[in-house]
Amino acid sequence: MSADQGNASYGHKEFKRSKSHFADRVTADGRDGWPVEAGRYRLVVSRACPWAGRSLISRRLLGLEGAVSLAVTDPIQDDRSWRFTLDPDDRDPVLGIRYLSEAYEARETGYPGGVSVPALVDVPSGKLVTNDFQQITLDFATEWTALHREGAPDLYPEPLRDEIDTVMDGIYRDVNNGVYRSGFAPDQETYESACRDVFRRLDLASERLSNRRYLVGDTITEADIRFFCTLVRFDAVYHGHFKCNVRKLSEDRVLWAYARDLFQTPGFGDTIDFDHIKRHYYQVHTGINPTGIVPLGPDPSGWLTPHHREELGGRPFGDGTPPGPVPSGEEVPATGRP
Amino acid sequence: MSADQGNASYGHKEFKRSKSHFADRVTADGRDGWPVEAGRYRLVVSRACPWAGRSLISRRLLGLEGAVSLAVTDPIQDDRSWRFTLDPDDRDPVLGIRYLSEAYEARETGYPGGVSVPALVDVPSGKLVTNDFQQITLDFATEWTALHREGAPDLYPEPLRDEIDTVMDGIYRDVNNGVYRSGFAPDQETYESACRDVFRRLDLASERLSNRRYLVGDTITEADIRFFCTLVRFDAVYHGHFKCNVRKLSEDRVLWAYARDLFQTPGFGDTIDFDHIKRHYYQVHTGINPTGIVPLGPDPSGWLTPHHREELGGRPFGDGTPPGPVPSGEEVPATGRP
Repeated sequence: MSADQGNASYGHKEFKRSKSHFADRVTADGRDGWPVEAGRYRLVVSRACPWAGRSLISRRLLGLEGAVSLAVTDPIQDDRSWRFTLDPDDRDPVLGIRYLSEAYEARETGYPGGVSVPALVDVPSGKLVTNDFQQITLDFATEWTALHREGAPDLYPEPLRDEIDTVMDGIYRDVNNGVYRSGFAPDQETYESACRDVFRRLDLASERLSNRRYLVGDTITEADIRFFCTLVRFDAVYHGHFKCNVRKLSEDRVLWAYARDLFQTPGFGDTIDFDHIKRHYYQVHTGINPTGIVPLGPDPSGWLTPHHREELGGRPFGDGTPPGPVPSGEEVPATGRP
Repeated sequence: MSADQGNASYGHKEFKRSKSHFADRVTADGRDGWPVEAGRYRLVVSRACPWAGRSLISRRLLGLEGAVSLAVTDPIQDDRSWRFTLDPDDRDPVLGIRYLSEAYEARETGYPGGVSVPALVDVPSGKLVTNDFQQITLDFATEWTALHREGAPDLYPEPLRDEIDTVMDGIYRDVNNGVYRSGFAPDQETYESACRDVFRRLDLASERLSNRRYLVGDTITEADIRFFCTLVRFDAVYHGHFKCNVRKLSEDRVLWAYARDLFQTPGFGDTIDFDHIKRHYYQVHTGINPTGIVPLGPDPSGWLTPHHREELGGRPFGDGTPPGPVPSGEEVPATGRP
C-alpha cells in the first residue's frame, strides 16, 4: 500500500486534517439517537494508531471495558483498509464482519471516504456511529459517567477544561499531528517547518513538566492521554520513520520520565503494542519506506525503568483509584510488550 | 538517482563487496609504474563517503597535504556519478575534468564499471591509478614515508600489523560494511542479521575500548581511522537511514567518548562535513528515501563535548606530534561543522 493510502486510512493526509465524517455522539440523553448503554457499542481500534490509542486508554482508566466491548484490527491494512485478520476466520466475532469498512457501508451505502479508527459501532445494527477521534474520549469521560467503574478518575474536570483545551490544541497541532506533517511532508521546507514545530512544542512541554507531574492540574487528564499517545510512539516510529530526529524522547530527561510514569500507570502501558506500532508504520507507508523493512530498535525495555516522578507529588487518579487488571482476552501479546 | 545507482557508485551493492577494479599501488619503488612522488597524484574524495574519509584523515595525520593534492566532489552524484560541481565552471581545476568518470575513461576506454571514491589520479596523464580504498591508506602509511611530515605517526606499526588486521577485518565485515548490508538489505531477514552483526561488533568494541584509549596498542592506528569513519556517520545517517537503530552511538558511553576523542584530535574532525554526509545519503538513495528529504537532526554539537579519554593514558601520536592546521582552501565549510 502506498503512503497515501496508509495515510488516508487515518484520514489525515492533509496538512489541515479534515473533520471526521461521522460525528454523531453517544450521549447520556441520546440526543443524536445513540444513548449510552452497556453492551450496545463496540469500539474498533488498531493498537498501532495513536488516535485510537486514546480511546483504549480512556476506556481502561474509566473502567468501561465491561460496557464497551473491544475489537482490535490487524496493524496492517490492505487495499480495503482495516481488517479483522487477528480473529478466527478473519472475522470480528461480535460484528461478524471482515473489514471495518463494512460498518461504514452499513451506515452509509456507497460511502466513498476513508476508513479510520477509532470507530464506535452500534452492535445491533452493525452501523458505524462515530469515527470522531477528538470527541470519543471526551464523551467517554463526560457522557458515560453512569457506567464508569467505582473510583474512576475525572479525566476532563469542569473547572480545568479551558486550560486542558488550550494545552491540547497546541499539542495536537504541533505534536500529535505535527509528527505526521513531518513524516508526510512533500518537500524539504514543509518537513523542516513541521519538525521544528514538533521540537519547539516538546521543549515547551518539557519545561512545563519539569516541576509538575501532569500537564494540567495535579491529576491525569485527557491532555496527558493525548500527549502520551504520541510520546509512546516517538522513539519507535516517529524518530526514524517520520524523521523527527532532533533527539529521541529518551534524550529529554523530563519528557522521558513523564512518559515512563504514565506508561507504568495501569491503563496506559498495558494498552500499548510496540509490535503493532512498528509493523504498521514501517510496512504500510511504503511511500516513505519502500522496502517495508521494520527496524530492530530501539530496545523498549527502558519504558520499565524507574522515573522518580512521584517526587513531584500529584494525585494520578485524584480522589479515585487506579483501574484493575486488563480484562482477560485483551492482554497485549508478549511480542508487543517491553 | 536510485539507491542502486547511489550504491553502485560506491561499488558496494552486494553483500560481498567486490574488489576494487583498479588496484595498482603507488609505492616507494614504483613497481606498478607509479612511484611515490610529490605533486604527481591527486586524491579525489567525497567528504560524504566513509571509504574516502579514511584517506582524508590519513593524509592529514601523515602531513601529505603538500605532496598529494585534494579534489572534493559534490556530495550528490548525478547519472554520471561523482562530479566537480563545487569547483568554478564545474571542473576540477587541476585535472580539468567535470566528472571523475573521465579519469576512469582515460585509464580504460569504455570502462563499464562503477565510479568510486577515493581515487588517486595521475595528474600528468589524467589517468586513474587506483580506487582501492582498502590499500590507499595502508600505502600512505608505509610507502609514502619519505614524504611524511616531521612528527608523523606510524599508523601501521610493523609489530602490531597482525592484530590491526584482525581487528579491522571484524570491524570491516560487521560495521564498516555491515551498516550498508543493513541499509540496503532486500528483505527483513537479511536486514535483521546485518543489523545484529553491527551491534554485536559494536558491543565487542565498546568492551575492548572501556579500559584502553585506542583499538590496538596505545597509539592511533589505521584501525582507529577505519572505525572512526563509520562511527562519525552513525547517528547522522546509519541510525535512521540505514535502520541501525538499536541505539545511537551517543547512547554507548564508551564508544561515544572514544569517537569524540578522535573527532577532537587534529586530522579527524577537521575532515568531516556533516552537511555533505547527510545530503549524500538521504538524497542519493531514493530507493530507501524516496522523498529525498534530509532530516534536521541530530544536533552535532555533542561532538565537541569533553570526553575524558585522556584519563586512560595512551599516546595519540606515539613518538610523533599532532598535525598542523588544515591547509588553506581545504577547510570544511561552517555548514558542515558541529
